Amino acid sequence: MNTLHDALQSYQQWFKTLTFPENPARLYDAIRYFLDGGGKRIRPVLCLLGNEMFGELHDDAFHAATAVELYHNFSLVHDDIIDHSPLRRGRPTVHIKYNTPTAILAGDVLLINAFGHINHIRDPYREQVAELFSATAVEVCEGQQLDIDMEETDAERISYTDYLHMITLKTSVLLAASIKMGAIVGGASTEDQSYIYDFGKNLGVAFQMQDDYLDAFGDPEKTGKQPGGDILENKKTALLVKTMERASPEQKTALKAAMQLEGAEKVAAVLAVYEDCKVDKWALATINQFTELAFNYLNVINVPEDRKASLLSLADALLVRQS
Amino acid sequence: MNTLHDALQSYQQWFKTLTFPENPARLYDAIRYFLDGGGKRIRPVLCLLGNEMFGELHDDAFHAATAVELYHNFSLVHDDIIDHSPLRRGRPTVHIKYNTPTAILAGDVLLINAFGHINHIRDPYREQVAELFSATAVEVCEGQQLDIDMEETDAERISYTDYLHMITLKTSVLLAASIKMGAIVGGASTEDQSYIYDFGKNLGVAFQMQDDYLDAFGDPEKTGKQPGGDILENKKTALLVKTMERASPEQKTALKAAMQLEGAEKVAAVLAVYEDCKVDKWALATINQFTELAFNYLNVINVPEDRKASLLSLADALLVRQS
Repeated sequence: MNTLHDALQSYQQWFKTLTFPENPARLYDAIRYFLDGGGKRIRPVLCLLGNEMFGELHDDAFHAATAVELYHNFSLVHDDIIDHSPLRRGRPTVHIKYNTPTAILAGDVLLINAFGHINHIRDPYREQVAELFSATAVEVCEGQQLDIDMEETDAERISYTDYLHMITLKTSVLLAASIKMGAIVGGASTEDQSYIYDFGKNLGVAFQMQDDYLDAFGDPEKTGKQPGGDILENKKTALLVKTMERASPEQKTALKAAMQLEGAEKVAAVLAVYEDCKVDKWALATINQFTELAFNYLNVINVPEDRKASLLSLADALLVRQS
Repeated sequence: MNTLHDALQSYQQWFKTLTFPENPARLYDAIRYFLDGGGKRIRPVLCLLGNEMFGELHDDAFHAATAVELYHNFSLVHDDIIDHSPLRRGRPTVHIKYNTPTAILAGDVLLINAFGHINHIRDPYREQVAELFSATAVEVCEGQQLDIDMEETDAERISYTDYLHMITLKTSVLLAASIKMGAIVGGASTEDQSYIYDFGKNLGVAFQMQDDYLDAFGDPEKTGKQPGGDILENKKTALLVKTMERASPEQKTALKAAMQLEGAEKVAAVLAVYEDCKVDKWALATINQFTELAFNYLNVINVPEDRKASLLSLADALLVRQS
């Protein structure tokens, strides 16, 4: 396995072999329904690539990858309940298709199964992977709580630092842990484990901020969706938080007025203030900073450059360059 | 440590040393609030006693006990959301005191922390304890799903076998696993591990059926509460399911009519049909059967009898004999 495509194919094959019991039917139907909905399998692929960068691909990486993928799916099922989301991957969410009790339990069982896979990793790697996985799993829940807290807080009272802390926990640490878990079972040195973790963490922040940027300023022909979804939902994005931070009193008044509007008018008016505050340019610069930081960490890792090729491809695929 | 009281004291001391981070405040306040609400700590005590029956008490038993106790608390937090319960241990439940999103996350973090404690158990015991813990954790969720399914099903269509399967998963397997995890880290033989598991499982069934029995026929002076709560809520208890199974067409008609009534009148009328079908006597006999079965498993365990004394005291404390 050498390319990104190979890693994805290989993981998809493994993932297909996962089975769940038939009964209780509603519980396991809900789990199968959600897992069959797909997903890009970014985290398990990161895990396999993390292993391959340092050593021959081992089953342990597949176990770690599966733990991460099941954990990710658990968190989506519970987040959809928390956020009252009706749709995910173009289909009704579990709590809508089944009901909230079954969605809570389906998430719980996915989480328990995730830990079951960690238990299959061979010594001496298992203990360290388990510690990292547990710590990360808690962090993601903390990030989700911070996101809930933030959504209930006035945008003026949220700092960009708070926002960064929240998305780091909610999004980046799981990406970072995925690749580090692979590196651990691949036999990476403690130093390289730390570098690869920081690569994943900064890549994750860049990715999340790009998500915020594209939702506001993305080219519909490239992103496939109309911009402004976050603005219409008053979501606390990097752009909104940063604009509030750097806006003059007049710009702040204009932003608040814009946020009272509706539909396309609202989107246009909010975007005008973002641009007036140059937050669009700031966002692009910041995404590039985090991306460069990520690549700097990748650069210092002490393996032949060809071993980094697949990770570079993945990073390129994640970060649709707009500038 | 020799008595039940010592085991409880010792575990309470350990449990008090558990700490959680300060932030995010709402998440960890919710967790501390729930854990401070108390609980009888039956499962961790079973775990310590399981260890002591076979060997000197080891820290591993405290880790396993804590995993089980945190798991139990996780399941209560999520069950309270699922069942829309406003009160637990005389105080508002987490989703009422905080909100449902925080209660979901608080449960998730308790569950993740439970697995973290398993990871501290020394080799060679850790792997087996982890396997048992994961399998049991899934079973309890399955039991909760079966309970939800059962509550939505007409009582006439539920068999006593279905009921027994549900309570075994929802209640008994965690008690059985608690004591077996203690036995594993105490160095019990595979045979004795299996006996102690079956002791716990049957004791659990007896305990749950006693709960159903006392709610209907308990002496308020002994139980401290007015009987009939389950009847007023139309809960699918062993008594209701068994009555539906053995009732004549006339008795079934009487039961359905009784269930349409309200308040004390409803309780009295339903109890009259239970007694008419001799389900009160059946319940007592069945509780005794499961209790005897449990003690038979305890008897065949190959350790000096004085090592079984604390478990016998605990079983006696759980099973308030009414006959």
